[in-house]
Amino acid sequence: MTERVVLAYSGGLDTSVAIGWLGQETGAEVIAVAVDVGQGGEDMDVVRERAIACGAVESVVVDAKDEFAEEYCLPAVRANALYQDRYPIVSALSRPLIVKHLVDAAMYHGATTVSHGCTGKGNDQVRFEVGTKALAPDLKVIAPVRDYAWTREKAIAYAEEHGLPIDVTKKSPYSIDQNVWGRAVETGFLEDIWNGPIEDLYSYTSDPAQPRDADEVVIGFDGGVPVTIDGKPVSVLQAIQDLNERAGAQGIGRIDVVEDRLVGIKSREIYEAPGAMTLIAAHMELENVTIERELARYKRGVDQRWGELAYDGLWFSPLKRSLDAFVDTSQEHVTGEVRMTLHGGRATVTGRRSTSSLYDFNLATYDEGDSFDQSMARGFIEIFGMSSTLANKRDRTVAGE
Amino acid sequence: MTERVVLAYSGGLDTSVAIGWLGQETGAEVIAVAVDVGQGGEDMDVVRERAIACGAVESVVVDAKDEFAEEYCLPAVRANALYQDRYPIVSALSRPLIVKHLVDAAMYHGATTVSHGCTGKGNDQVRFEVGTKALAPDLKVIAPVRDYAWTREKAIAYAEEHGLPIDVTKKSPYSIDQNVWGRAVETGFLEDIWNGPIEDLYSYTSDPAQPRDADEVVIGFDGGVPVTIDGKPVSVLQAIQDLNERAGAQGIGRIDVVEDRLVGIKSREIYEAPGAMTLIAAHMELENVTIERELARYKRGVDQRWGELAYDGLWFSPLKRSLDAFVDTSQEHVTGEVRMTLHGGRATVTGRRSTSSLYDFNLATYDEGDSFDQSMARGFIEIFGMSSTLANKRDRTVAGE
Amino acid sequence: MTERVVLAYSGGLDTSVAIGWLGQETGAEVIAVAVDVGQGGEDMDVVRERAIACGAVESVVVDAKDEFAEEYCLPAVRANALYQDRYPIVSALSRPLIVKHLVDAAMYHGATTVSHGCTGKGNDQVRFEVGTKALAPDLKVIAPVRDYAWTREKAIAYAEEHGLPIDVTKKSPYSIDQNVWGRAVETGFLEDIWNGPIEDLYSYTSDPAQPRDADEVVIGFDGGVPVTIDGKPVSVLQAIQDLNERAGAQGIGRIDVVEDRLVGIKSREIYEAPGAMTLIAAHMELENVTIERELARYKRGVDQRWGELAYDGLWFSPLKRSLDAFVDTSQEHVTGEVRMTLHGGRATVTGRRSTSSLYDFNLATYDEGDSFDQSMARGFIEIFGMSSTLANKRDRTVAGE
Amino acid sequence: MTERVVLAYSGGLDTSVAIGWLGQETGAEVIAVAVDVGQGGEDMDVVRERAIACGAVESVVVDAKDEFAEEYCLPAVRANALYQDRYPIVSALSRPLIVKHLVDAAMYHGATTVSHGCTGKGNDQVRFEVGTKALAPDLKVIAPVRDYAWTREKAIAYAEEHGLPIDVTKKSPYSIDQNVWGRAVETGFLEDIWNGPIEDLYSYTSDPAQPRDADEVVIGFDGGVPVTIDGKPVSVLQAIQDLNERAGAQGIGRIDVVEDRLVGIKSREIYEAPGAMTLIAAHMELENVTIERELARYKRGVDQRWGELAYDGLWFSPLKRSLDAFVDTSQEHVTGEVRMTLHGGRATVTGRRSTSSLYDFNLATYDEGDSFDQSMARGFIEIFGMSSTLANKRDRTVAGE
Repeated sequence: MTERVVLAYSGGLDTSVAIGWLGQETGAEVIAVAVDVGQGGEDMDVVRERAIACGAVESVVVDAKDEFAEEYCLPAVRANALYQDRYPIVSALSRPLIVKHLVDAAMYHGATTVSHGCTGKGNDQVRFEVGTKALAPDLKVIAPVRDYAWTREKAIAYAEEHGLPIDVTKKSPYSIDQNVWGRAVETGFLEDIWNGPIEDLYSYTSDPAQPRDADEVVIGFDGGVPVTIDGKPVSVLQAIQDLNERAGAQGIGRIDVVEDRLVGIKSREIYEAPGAMTLIAAHMELENVTIERELARYKRGVDQRWGELAYDGLWFSPLKRSLDAFVDTSQEHVTGEVRMTLHGGRATVTGRRSTSSLYDFNLATYDEGDSFDQSMARGFIEIFGMSSTLANKRDRTVAGE
Repeated sequence: MTERVVLAYSGGLDTSVAIGWLGQETGAEVIAVAVDVGQGGEDMDVVRERAIACGAVESVVVDAKDEFAEEYCLPAVRANALYQDRYPIVSALSRPLIVKHLVDAAMYHGATTVSHGCTGKGNDQVRFEVGTKALAPDLKVIAPVRDYAWTREKAIAYAEEHGLPIDVTKKSPYSIDQNVWGRAVETGFLEDIWNGPIEDLYSYTSDPAQPRDADEVVIGFDGGVPVTIDGKPVSVLQAIQDLNERAGAQGIGRIDVVEDRLVGIKSREIYEAPGAMTLIAAHMELENVTIERELARYKRGVDQRWGELAYDGLWFSPLKRSLDAFVDTSQEHVTGEVRMTLHGGRATVTGRRSTSSLYDFNLATYDEGDSFDQSMARGFIEIFGMSSTLANKRDRTVAGE
Repeated sequence: MTERVVLAYSGGLDTSVAIGWLGQETGAEVIAVAVDVGQGGEDMDVVRERAIACGAVESVVVDAKDEFAEEYCLPAVRANALYQDRYPIVSALSRPLIVKHLVDAAMYHGATTVSHGCTGKGNDQVRFEVGTKALAPDLKVIAPVRDYAWTREKAIAYAEEHGLPIDVTKKSPYSIDQNVWGRAVETGFLEDIWNGPIEDLYSYTSDPAQPRDADEVVIGFDGGVPVTIDGKPVSVLQAIQDLNERAGAQGIGRIDVVEDRLVGIKSREIYEAPGAMTLIAAHMELENVTIERELARYKRGVDQRWGELAYDGLWFSPLKRSLDAFVDTSQEHVTGEVRMTLHGGRATVTGRRSTSSLYDFNLATYDEGDSFDQSMARGFIEIFGMSSTLANKRDRTVAGE
Repeated sequence: MTERVVLAYSGGLDTSVAIGWLGQETGAEVIAVAVDVGQGGEDMDVVRERAIACGAVESVVVDAKDEFAEEYCLPAVRANALYQDRYPIVSALSRPLIVKHLVDAAMYHGATTVSHGCTGKGNDQVRFEVGTKALAPDLKVIAPVRDYAWTREKAIAYAEEHGLPIDVTKKSPYSIDQNVWGRAVETGFLEDIWNGPIEDLYSYTSDPAQPRDADEVVIGFDGGVPVTIDGKPVSVLQAIQDLNERAGAQGIGRIDVVEDRLVGIKSREIYEAPGAMTLIAAHMELENVTIERELARYKRGVDQRWGELAYDGLWFSPLKRSLDAFVDTSQEHVTGEVRMTLHGGRATVTGRRSTSSLYDFNLATYDEGDSFDQSMARGFIEIFGMSSTLANKRDRTVAGE
């Protein structure tokens, strides 16, 4: 029986060429799988047909937008996942989902190998391969660009030679990955990290410096899940899409960062994530209102590690599962509404209310109704500070003061 | 010999009244100490004289602006100190400095007691008292507002009765603490956390929504210390002041947060910290360029704990000192320049350069000159993912799959 | 209606006297609640009757041994709870359970107050009172020893005066708290921390230095729960009791430590916990076999924090619950058997086997059958070390080497 | 000019054969470097001469015992370095030191390559190669056993064929690495992790089960450095050697553990480290007496990470340096004496005294002289527990209770 390879198919030049090339190189039949995670761009039917035209024996398009929002973006909101306190792990979130569908397709179609288009110096290869091994350790993985040094030039030559239905002339200067959670852009001139980004890079966001009217939005959460926008029920996907549009129109969510890749190097990345950044900002403030202090302090460390694991391609790892359990428990009471002003590149919280609030007006107020018993403070201070006080005293004694 | 009390003196109604009142209540002589940490407002000579007019036997004004910038604000920059990932601990930073000068004055003037004007439900009482005990465990501390339930109404009555040189009629609706690092505002109507802040609250920052031209600034650091602004050498104090002005003019650094107080309650706080937020943003990005990944990841946890300790009044504690040592070591190579656009409430990094950069163009580039050996990737991925892969395999075996 | 107080009753002098005294002082009726957590000593029926004889209107004995083992000791095993890496939090574990039964009794009997016999300088008062507030914030708490400076001398005088059925003559030099999880001893001469403990202190353990034959035991776990001893099914309580006896006979589980109390001071404590130490040692090694590396590394921090929270009286706190969720998830595959030699004060693991083992003979062996692909190592080392290598290179460049 | 290779030389079969083989394979001259880290066994002069006899152009023996003790073992004591809370990283500590001397020799002798005898599935290859790159990124590394699949059988054949001065007939069933800090043993029959270790494995320790008299030792530390044994000044090396002998004679320091290797697999290891385990136990207890609680709690996490970094071969990494700075600061007051009973496999602390003690008899005692102000407790408890109390109240309110 002929071997079969499942290829993560984007519809672009590289993976279109890879169909024929993989068949040629390995003698295998190629099954193209395109996963719709809200990357927009081309009609997915066109994408599917192109794979067949390029020689795939099967071509599948999976509409995984809701699955992506609910199973991947939502946990990222609940863990306030910001790699380096900054970047809402746009590409990293989609990889395990794509892997899952590749593996499903491989099982269904009896393939022995999966293939992806990543290079050998990025994070995505790790996410694809560690993810695949997690779900199906016996599947082989081929990365033509990395393993066979397949280049853009060779791809163009191959496409022209074989008359593949791809326009090889329009060469974007940008290397882009996008999905409903955000958009990542790399490009040559930004590899000089002193160069600033230019307006032309952006697609999800308008120029924040342009004058326009502010937009006010109220986001409602239930147990850490965004469930309403301005009081109207929404799915997680709708919440992200709606905020992508509204926050994007206000220029919110642009990120320019020198990033620590898992493969040991630093790279310079531009991201846009208007919906993600707005949701996370709202969620963090609702946590401030509804999560107890010691849990909140500890959760910061959990959130950081969660983001690192997701970034590092360890989505399907034991530690990730245990951190998920921690985060899930923490979200039980993250219920309420956050009002934000979206304007000029800023998503600013202006109000929050919650039936699960831990903010207690009567304890907090300095006006009438104050119920805080200030006589407790002296004892607290005395004992709270005691271990440190004794240490300072010791230090002076030892120093002979 | 008559007992002496050193009072942390602000020049305002409460502490002016406290001079006479403390004398009356305790029979002690009162020494007023006003510490200038850049709070602005009144002329410090007027403040000093007022204390005498109110009955102080000594009145001292300490210009501690440079000391504050260098010994307190600078460590906060180096530790990216943002309590709850948000608030650059404005008041918390000044307290240990004020304590230090109170204790010095107590030693110098032979006082047995220090006194501060804090209430019994805030963090500042803890900072004052734990700080004082750290430096001079034998000093007593009196907090009249807390310990004797001294109220504003009683203060006004006392001031009028004794003809103290204070205008008791102008009642600000705001409770304010400010210094060169920032400004904190509380007020009754914000105790309803659904209410949004109004423009009237702000003093260090202009309305970010007002149209104006962008301002570009280049901040230079040497070993984690800001040393130049636009190429011009500056002291730390000058850097903060300059950025307060320029970032403040662009509406940068407003913070509205529900905060976890050390005393167990949540409170709602408004802050302005244009210089602090700009410096920390620049510093964090320069760290991204110059600090190795594992150190950077660990340092986030150290930074968080550092900020919590400073917030919690444990400035002079053994753990704080050891975290300082960690941070100091980490800053050795945080040298270079960060270019930022200040505009519309946003301080956006647009470029960074460093002679200590860990960003390696040749490793990062996808263009000519690429020196990254992609053949190393397979081995890395295999072994990096192995422990997780084995665990996933085990899970399936145990599940009988 | 007469007020009612629920008293945590031990049957000893202090709490026996407290019955009459509390009634006298507060005018309330006293309900005595004795919780059997395996402290041994007196017959619990005698204890119940004594409370009535001392004036209690109701006297309840709760056999909570199984509940204690399953709901309190077991989570401690799963979290390897060793405060300061040393002490299996004997007293701290029983407090929340006792609190729960006090609160239940207060609800049932319509009491408005609970009372305990702790002093004002230990941890237990915190555990009792923070625990009570967690479960029933409206209940008042009275601690006569602390709040009214009730002393042993006054207690003896009161007992004699009122003819209470207690032998006040036998004065133990030791202050003891014990339950099935272990035994804590304090005594005057050990307050000099240079003094060594004497054999007379111990009751759960024989002298480890005495010659005797070794005992071999096989402990079986299922999902982190001890379920068999030498192949025989046991309840958690039975496992602890059996190991208390067998490990105790071998002198295992003695601890002598200078401990950081929550109330800010250091104290010197002697503990015996033969069963606890043996179970935790077995559990830790089974985790080594069945838990993936990154989860294991992170779990150490979680375990530490879990132990601190339990020690600090925060059993019923939000962070504790989220850590529990983390730990629960981690235990899914902690299944298998651990063989130990109990001898001469040592509980030594000599073998472990598990159907969920992550130890893979074929990967580990250096003999025939080795399936580890050593060619992967170079790539791993290159990329694993890269960020550190680049940093060292930069350091030398900057230093001009 | 002929290329030169510096070989980490042990004097054993594998590295003796490697001398000739490396020359043959690479055309390079081989310089043998044997580093004496207290591994004992053969006379180092014999080792040096054997390398020449085997064809080395230069043969160097470095007596690094004191350097190893002071620069590598001592930091491990101060960081209480126990990988998996159990194993005092015996081999891991010596690798960076050996690397340092290999690199020094390479510089001195103009070599371009270093070579080590590690396999491709262990941790040591990582430690050698990441260490070498840290100190000299341009040096190449060859690991014949791994890179050229050199086996024991081939080595014996080569040795016999070339008449090398090595007895190839005495085949130990054990794979051993030892130095003054401890001894690591692997062997085939222990690869079945249910098999128990046998007495024959051990060399640094006597059978703990054999009856003998106890030994009492007093270890003195100054700033975290062991400086006296029974009052007699010692170097760090002497302290380790003395305790190896005395604790070894009592059977102390045997470890049997399933270990998480850096390369992703679990392996079963037997260690002996009598001096190391005794020193660390003494040091930990002296820390309990002299380190303030919050620093102590945080330091546990630092210690864990320090041990992981050392284990993982990241000795010369930026994070390691910053953790060192933290640890150094923490040790300032770790001064005093610890008395231990060494007996029957146990190193038991029985007393501790320190001029820097934070243990305060007057605060701790329940007898006369008690200076703890118990009236402070109520306020402390109230405020310490408040955030948790409020959360529990909220939970019940939300649950409709």
